[in-house]
Amino acid sequence: MNNFHYRIPTEIYFGKNQIENLKNITAFGKTVLLVYGGQSIKKMGLYNKVKSILEDCRMNVFELGGVEPNPKIESVRKGVDICKKEKVDVVLPVGGGSVLDCAKVIAAGAKYDGDPWDLVLDGSKIAGALPVVTVLTLSATGSEMDEFAVISDMDKNEKWGTGSEYIKPAFSILDPTYTFSVSKKQTAAGTADIMSHIFENYFTNAEGAFVQARFCESLLKTCIKYGPVALNEPDNYEARANLMWTSSLAINGLLSLGAEVTWCVHPMEHELSAFYDITHGEGLAILTPVWMEYVLSDKTAEKFAQYGENVFDLPKGKNPMETAKEAISKTREFFAVMGLPATLGQLGIDETHFDKMAEKAADGLETAFVPLTKDDVKQIFKNAL
Amino acid sequence: MNNFHYRIPTEIYFGKNQIENLKNITAFGKTVLLVYGGQSIKKMGLYNKVKSILEDCRMNVFELGGVEPNPKIESVRKGVDICKKEKVDVVLPVGGGSVLDCAKVIAAGAKYDGDPWDLVLDGSKIAGALPVVTVLTLSATGSEMDEFAVISDMDKNEKWGTGSEYIKPAFSILDPTYTFSVSKKQTAAGTADIMSHIFENYFTNAEGAFVQARFCESLLKTCIKYGPVALNEPDNYEARANLMWTSSLAINGLLSLGAEVTWCVHPMEHELSAFYDITHGEGLAILTPVWMEYVLSDKTAEKFAQYGENVFDLPKGKNPMETAKEAISKTREFFAVMGLPATLGQLGIDETHFDKMAEKAADGLETAFVPLTKDDVKQIFKNAL
Repeated sequence: MNNFHYRIPTEIYFGKNQIENLKNITAFGKTVLLVYGGQSIKKMGLYNKVKSILEDCRMNVFELGGVEPNPKIESVRKGVDICKKEKVDVVLPVGGGSVLDCAKVIAAGAKYDGDPWDLVLDGSKIAGALPVVTVLTLSATGSEMDEFAVISDMDKNEKWGTGSEYIKPAFSILDPTYTFSVSKKQTAAGTADIMSHIFENYFTNAEGAFVQARFCESLLKTCIKYGPVALNEPDNYEARANLMWTSSLAINGLLSLGAEVTWCVHPMEHELSAFYDITHGEGLAILTPVWMEYVLSDKTAEKFAQYGENVFDLPKGKNPMETAKEAISKTREFFAVMGLPATLGQLGIDETHFDKMAEKAADGLETAFVPLTKDDVKQIFKNAL
Repeated sequence: MNNFHYRIPTEIYFGKNQIENLKNITAFGKTVLLVYGGQSIKKMGLYNKVKSILEDCRMNVFELGGVEPNPKIESVRKGVDICKKEKVDVVLPVGGGSVLDCAKVIAAGAKYDGDPWDLVLDGSKIAGALPVVTVLTLSATGSEMDEFAVISDMDKNEKWGTGSEYIKPAFSILDPTYTFSVSKKQTAAGTADIMSHIFENYFTNAEGAFVQARFCESLLKTCIKYGPVALNEPDNYEARANLMWTSSLAINGLLSLGAEVTWCVHPMEHELSAFYDITHGEGLAILTPVWMEYVLSDKTAEKFAQYGENVFDLPKGKNPMETAKEAISKTREFFAVMGLPATLGQLGIDETHFDKMAEKAADGLETAFVPLTKDDVKQIFKNAL
């Protein structure tokens, strides 16, 4: 197990009607920037509820609506401008990971003199941030409890993840009932995103991180059990609750600390989203089994076999390579059951930009679970067609 | 899954040489009360190391040594007196759970006008505490990351657990190498204590807390894998590291939040320790399988079978009662492998005080996984003879 520093300052109010605890936002000041996406929070009555609580608390409320999936740097800039002009004290995103990510970089940008894109390119430039309080409506990115944010500049076909201790939310409200209205497509994509976060941590070369590996398997089993339930019974509280809590635990540091590894499927997918603005989780579901097959070797077979045995209950003690292959098949089958696409072709993606995408994605992957070059990444993209 | 409020403010510096981060204690003030037990931290050089770091930081250091296992209220009172007289800013226990628990109640007592025993009897009376920074030398109680402390008054044969948000440590240093010198007996007892914390959370009637149950199984598997390794190879870093991190995760809220249940084996063991001053973990190892057998019924068989299947890899799909019984046997066998005692007789305990002990232990157990009366508890004690 590697040395680590565990620090998860975010508090979570989890469960039905926890929105009442939003009143605790007053600890951070009087002026709030409410950040949200489209109409869904209005349709479900959450927008009015939030506004009414803020009103009861006599907060001054400014708003930034219309934050898009794969949030754009332009939205961040708008939010930063409001924060600076109106002397905002606290940023309150209400929505899914895109809204939260946008708000987190707004919070950092409010304390930064230059263009916030600098902070996306280099998280170490974040030297402070307004406090962020989140209300989550989609189980996927884990942004409600972590230090990360992913922002795109579509003009440049760039999508980057940034991170800083300063943008960990102060507290987050996780009410699984808010996810009852999430569409089948987004439920499936969200589950694939959660699973990919777990995979990124699970397939590590760090030695002796036994606890972390077992926790990864626990969370993968949770996704596999409850993903299809949530798909078929959208208002199944137990399923939505387990997926929601799993989304936070998958990426808040619990799985990675002591077992650090360079993520590799996420950087590849970010290139897909940057060039084609597709749904992140769909891209991940396509790339994950292809990546698994590509890196499977005598050297990695044991780890993939362990995955199959401990997550899919495949029989123990068989030939590791056979079990590994079956585990990868099971992964592919699971994504199919979730109705997720299996090929890039299904999303209208062809080879056009593979060269450029592979070059960008491969930057840094020499320290991944299995090191990957530009040519490797390009081949993975091709295998995913 | 029940509603919950997740708040784990304690930071952890985990791994080799993390003691260097002790310098961060200066954030809490200039005057520190160093709390420790016997000679072991001096023998291993940790005492000198800590003193030298505090000196480098120009801290004023007061000391309270000689804190006993099953820490006594008299030690707490001594510490509180020093804190009040010397205007101590921060309390620094260096040792195992007993030292940490003692220090946590000292920290609370320093901010309380009456006798600190009041705070042991009623944690809600804790309305503030000095910051606590811990350096851990024994994997067992999880006190380094939780809100609990257990203090005894041997004159009254009383041993009670108290708890408060205020006594959660600010940060803790967990260096597994400090546990290399822990004796076989204490290694075994510590492992039994960790496992008991997990069992107390695992055997719950809360519905739908799937993530929490899988996490419990992950940590139990860790204890079962690494407990014997640590026993036979005391300086096996991987084993000590996994046990140490498991001790913290078992009781910091991760397993219990959303799946709350009344603990029942711990209260029973506290009566043993209060009357006989035995090693806590040994008492737990004796009572746990006896309790399991006592509460096993058609109603609970499925949960025990699940435990057997998921922790001991017993074959799935067999008759639940048979699997449950095998799981309990496996538990007993594991404790035997760890060299732990199996009967109260081995510890010199007879029926003398069972009546009084059962009466005190049963108070509140009507809400346990299987509700227990005074007569039930008495019978469990008898079955453990």
